[in-house]
Parts: sequence; structure tokens; C-alpha cells
Amino acid sequence: MAGNPKPPRLWRDVVLFDGHDTRAEPMAVVVEAGHISRVMPMTELDRDVAAGCREMGRGGVMTPGLVDCHTHLVFGGSRADEFEQRLEGVSYEEIARRGGGILSTVRATRAASEDELFAQARPRLQALMAEGVTSVEIKSGYGLTVADELKMLRVARRLGAALPVRVITTLLGAHALPPEFAGDSDGYIELVCREMIPAAAEQGLADAVDVFCEKIAFSVAQCERVFEAAEAHGLPVKAHAEQLSNLGGSAMAARHGALSADHIEYLDEAGVAALREAGSVAVLLPGAFHTLRETRLPPIEALRAAAVPMAIATDANPGSSPIFNPTLMLNFACTLFRLTPREALAGMTAQGARALGLHERGGGGHGRVTAGAPADLCWWDAESPAALAYAVQPGRLRQRIFNGEVTHDTAHA
Amino acid sequence: MAGNPKPPRLWRDVVLFDGHDTRAEPMAVVVEAGHISRVMPMTELDRDVAAGCREMGRGGVMTPGLVDCHTHLVFGGSRADEFEQRLEGVSYEEIARRGGGILSTVRATRAASEDELFAQARPRLQALMAEGVTSVEIKSGYGLTVADELKMLRVARRLGAALPVRVITTLLGAHALPPEFAGDSDGYIELVCREMIPAAAEQGLADAVDVFCEKIAFSVAQCERVFEAAEAHGLPVKAHAEQLSNLGGSAMAARHGALSADHIEYLDEAGVAALREAGSVAVLLPGAFHTLRETRLPPIEALRAAAVPMAIATDANPGSSPIFNPTLMLNFACTLFRLTPREALAGMTAQGARALGLHERGGGGHGRVTAGAPADLCWWDAESPAALAYAVQPGRLRQRIFNGEVTHDTAHA
Ligand SMILES: [Zn+2]
Ligand SMILES: [Zn+2]
Repeated sequence: MAGNPKPPRLWRDVVLFDGHDTRAEPMAVVVEAGHISRVMPMTELDRDVAAGCREMGRGGVMTPGLVDCHTHLVFGGSRADEFEQRLEGVSYEEIARRGGGILSTVRATRAASEDELFAQARPRLQALMAEGVTSVEIKSGYGLTVADELKMLRVARRLGAALPVRVITTLLGAHALPPEFAGDSDGYIELVCREMIPAAAEQGLADAVDVFCEKIAFSVAQCERVFEAAEAHGLPVKAHAEQLSNLGGSAMAARHGALSADHIEYLDEAGVAALREAGSVAVLLPGAFHTLRETRLPPIEALRAAAVPMAIATDANPGSSPIFNPTLMLNFACTLFRLTPREALAGMTAQGARALGLHERGGGGHGRVTAGAPADLCWWDAESPAALAYAVQPGRLRQRIFNGEVTHDTAHA
Repeated sequence: MAGNPKPPRLWRDVVLFDGHDTRAEPMAVVVEAGHISRVMPMTELDRDVAAGCREMGRGGVMTPGLVDCHTHLVFGGSRADEFEQRLEGVSYEEIARRGGGILSTVRATRAASEDELFAQARPRLQALMAEGVTSVEIKSGYGLTVADELKMLRVARRLGAALPVRVITTLLGAHALPPEFAGDSDGYIELVCREMIPAAAEQGLADAVDVFCEKIAFSVAQCERVFEAAEAHGLPVKAHAEQLSNLGGSAMAARHGALSADHIEYLDEAGVAALREAGSVAVLLPGAFHTLRETRLPPIEALRAAAVPMAIATDANPGSSPIFNPTLMLNFACTLFRLTPREALAGMTAQGARALGLHERGGGGHGRVTAGAPADLCWWDAESPAALAYAVQPGRLRQRIFNGEVTHDTAHA
């Protein structure tokens, strides 16, 4: 291989969304040895440079590979039946009595082997990849025992090893109270802090620790104990917070330097200020907003005014967001949350990477098209970057480039 | 060929949604010479019959090919810029002043050649096909001159000839008032009735005639004149009606035996009764509801109580529903309109076919999995038919079968 190095690869005359903005001029992007080596206006593309490259594409739209910074895509079972029953008029109480809801996913996840969970999660992840995802966060949270949470994280790691995609894992032991701890949520939090977090950290299975801070889940004080345990093991933290009420979970997370606060429909001005102070990302999840038919919008104007970075993610999960389509989230972010297409695209690229702490890893540049960044790119058949958020049209991804390699190519199929 | 006939093709152990209901038992479906020849429970599948067939698939979910009975997918230009401007705070007035809105699509459509319109519409249609569409209606309505409306219809016909999909064309001359008729909508309706409809009928370019009955478009009386002209040329009629207000357009359409009344958010009880009397289909368009952020729901309960058939369609168009994804509409129909998954699936199969008058064409059976029907089928990687509406996950279509031929096959890719 040393005697026959791959020539640099060139995409030319592309409309470039660089992770933050759309460039005004047609651009050229050169990729070498897994990284982006040059990004320049076509007017600066030297003829000799171009001649030394292999031309991969011309025209169209180029963006960073999409970053889906909040998913729960490893899980057992299906909640399609529950979805159907609810629409057929069965009450929530009756569904709960029949064993529905999150605990049905917990039961199915516990019952499933690692191989079964892997086989079930794989097509979901491939669906995300087929629409441009090159980095994805996968949370645990349906095992709720030490063994089952670690099992979920191992499945997530295996998915990253088996497929050309960057998987970032998050331990979400504090997702729901398992039935065997009914009435003893402090006891369960003790298990998360004393056993789950240390085991996940020791085995290198978790890149971060998450909590669900809500009346129906865990209190601010309980979540803070989880964060303290995470910090003791050197793991960054984040929170599901202010989704259904304003408990102050985001502000507490910010005090712990959280990577992100996610959902945040009920975030108040003090919470916005806390995120800004901490440099935490506001992760917006319009798929759950759609599925739950919520009407309370996250405080977009306040976040914008405070320049808090906003990321967008699928929240792919079997209950509140069974949506395995990242480009649909661009549309939802604009249509439901009134983000601009630029904000939505940044939310699934540069800001998504920031929410995962990727911007500080491996030389930086994740989620951006800039010299030195890892060559995770998407090349689209679209008239403009905004068109990716405007039209809901699967199949416009011509090429998906991961670590410099084209892993999906309908342009040359 | 006569000496070497193709063996019958068999899908076995499928969970079958037959166009109206999900069958209780695992089923076998046999296809011969472009038609479905047998549909039976696995318990009745004779071993000799199975041995004489080529087995195409086992397990999974089978449905009729999807029918998208309301689209405007031939058009020139893009409205992505307008979408972006609106989200960046540019007012509707300013966008109109800059030449935005439907008339920008009319200008671009008039300026485009037939080949250009074909090339632009083709990937949109392919996106629908990749998610299971085997029959699709395509309307004109952005030309608004005799020549440009006929051009659009020719493009629609060409799409049907070039791709393995059934295209049903609809003349929608009465879509909007073209600028050259400003202040003279009766004059334009005269052109539609005296020239457009006769020309389209003579050239066999239109399978039906549609109108936009609304304060911002044409009055009930004007639409009725269009219907009378259509009837004089033997063309069935349908209407965009009761989308933004209750003018009584649906009831008038029903009096003319309309195939369907479409949108109908503002339909009242009298309108529901009129549709029931006439046997017209209520076509629900949740993509436009989503895009326009409407809050007024169609009268689902009343339609259900009156047993008016409900169809679902994408309304794929550049302004109010830039959504080229039929399976997303199954989810939207359930999540936004509270249809059951069964109703949503019937709405994009048997009832969609009914809305197009297909149920009475060529021996019937369109949109259904029944012996004698054309073999337009979808074979899905899903745990149940309901799961197709529950999860938004592009790429679950394993095989798409059109006229008995497998035209898309990820199972054997
Ligand atoms: Zn979540
Ligand atoms: Zn329409």
C-alpha cells in the first residue's frame, strides 16, 4: 500500500454547507487519508491540484455527515401494538394494565440476547445511515440492571465496530425505575452510582452518563448524585430535562458542565442562562414533540438570543419517537419549531458534534467541513442545503463518506 | 416464451394486510401472469402447489402496492428559498412581492420544457416508488394555459410509460387564476371549459378533472361549470374542497358523483352526508396539514360514523406539502388525524384505488390482495402492518411488485 497511495479525492462545484453556514461560492473539497485536506472556492482550485485528484462528484450539495446526538435505538420488542391499541381507543390505564409502556420495552430488552438486540438495532441504524448519519449516540436505559445496561452498551459498541459509522455510547441507567425497586427510587439510584457507572467506566463501555430528570422519573437531587458518580469516573454528563415540567434539571446539569440538556420544552430564562454560562448544548427533539402531540415549544427565541448552541436529534426510541429518519428531523425542526434551515442543518452537524463532545476529540472538526477534520461527509442531490429541510424526500443522498471512504453511492450504482 | 412459461411466484408465511384488514392467520400469496391467482391461509397451501411455484419470499408483511391518489409532482422550479425566507422572518407580503407562492411555480413550469419537467419529476416519483407506491395520481395545475396544462399531462403520461408504476392523470386547470386573467376569473373558467377540457379529452391526456374550490381560488358555481364541461367529455370529477373554509364545494361535487372530495378540514355534517349518498371518497391530506401547521381536523368521527371511505395521500407539491414519502403519511394519518393503522393502510390501498376509480377498472381488485387483482404488491420487513404506520423508517420495503414483476428487491440485493 505504501508504494501505491490512494490519490486525493475531489468533489467540485458543490454548494457547501460547512456545519455552520452555506458558502456563497461554488466550492471544492479534497479528502486525503481519511481527513479533509482542502476546502476552497472553485476559483482557487488549481488545475494541477485537480489533475492529481480522483474526481468523485461534481455539483449538488455537500454537508458534513449528519450527527444524531440523541437516540435510544438499541431495544427489544416492538410497541406497534400499543400504538394501534391507543388509536383504537384503548385507554392508557388499560394499556398499562396489559403491561404496555416503557416497562414492556424493559422486559423485552432484558429477555433478548446481545445477538438479538444487535440484529434488531442494525436495520434501524442502517436507516439512519442511508439518510446521512455518520455519527450517532446510542443510549442504554431499557435494561435497568447492571448486567442488562452493560449488555445494551456492548451492543452499541458492536454496532459501531460492524458498520461504517461512529457510535458514541451513553449510560442511561437512570431512565426509569425498574419494577423490582418500586417505592425505592433512592435504592435504585444507589445501584446506578455504586455499580452501574463504575462497571461501565471500567469496561470502557460508556462515553457519557445521562439521566431522565422528571416527576415521572428521577428528582434533581437524585440526578445530581448520578452526575457526581459519573464525574468520579471521569465521564461527561447530560440530561433529559424540562420535557414535561420545569424542575430545574437543566440548570443543575449546567452546573456540572453538562454536554447538553435535551428536550427542554419547559426551560425558563434562568435555565437558558445556565446553559449559556456552562457552554452546554440545547438538544431539541421534534420527533417526540410530534409523536406526543405536544403544543409547548422549547424557548427557541431565548436560546437564540443567548447564543446557546442548538442541536437536533431523532430521539429514535420505541415509545415517544419511533422515527428513524434524520432528514425528516430537519423538516420538523423548521416546520414545528420554526428553526431556520441553517439552524436545523447546524443542529445535525456542528452542534450535534458539540453535544457529543466530539468537537474536542481527535483533533476536532467533527460535524464541520474544514481542513483537518475527519472526512465524514454527505453529498446530496438537492438544489440547496435549505432544500434538505424543505422537502421530505428520502433517497436524495448520493454519497455518504465516512472516514474518507465512500460507503453509500447511488451516483455510481 | 410459450414453451417456457414463468412458474407462478409464491410469497409464504406473510402477515397479510389485504387492503381492508389484517388477516388473522399467516398467509400465502401466489402471482401468475401479472395477477394474483391465489390468496390463502398457510394451512391451505397444498405441498404440490408450493412445489410448482418459485418462492419469492417468506415471512414479513405483505400489503397491496401503495396508492397515492393525490399528488402534484410535476412542477418546475423549487420553493426551498421561499421556505427558508419565511423561516428567516420575511413576511408573506414581501415573499409575494418578490414573486413567491404558487405563481412562482407557474412561471417556472411554463418556462420548463417537457424534458426538463420529466427530469425533475422523475426522482420525486422514484422516491414514492422506493417507499411502495405502485399507483399514483398526478395533477396538472401549474401551467394554466391550454398548452402548458397539456404539457404537464404529457409529462405525467411519460412518467407512467418510463417507470414501472401506474400513473393516473388529472386535469386541474382550475387550480389558480393565472395573472393574465386577473379580475376575470369567469373568463379563465371559460377557457378551462371550452378549450382545456376538450383538448385534454380529445388527446386522451386526462383520466379525471379536478378543481380548487375555495375563496382564494374558484367559487362553487365556477367549479360546477368545470364539472359540467368534464361530464360533457365523459371525464369523472373530483374537488379540492373545504380546506380553508366551508363553501359547500364537497356537496356540489357529490351531486356530480365526484370520485372524491379532498382536504375537507371544514366539511360539515351535510357535506359528510352528501359524500355518503354519492359514494365519494374523503381524501385526507395530512402532509399539507403538517406543513401549513393547521389545527382544524377533518371530521374523522363523522366520516367514520357515516362509513364514508377515507383515503390518505401525500398531496406531494412544492408549496403546501413538499413531502415525497407515502409511508410517512401512514404515520401522519395516525398521529395527526387519529386514524387507526388499519384505516391509514386502507386509505393508501383499497380506498386510494377507489378515489381514483381504479376499483372499477380492468377487472377490479386494485388496492387489494385478492384473487384476480393486478399483482401490485409490497413485501415489507416489519413486525406487523400497524408497524408501518407506527415507525417512521424509510427502507423497510424489501420487494415492490408491479404487474407481477419484482421491480425493487433489497431482499436479494
Ligand atoms: Zn431520549
Ligand atoms: Zn392538491
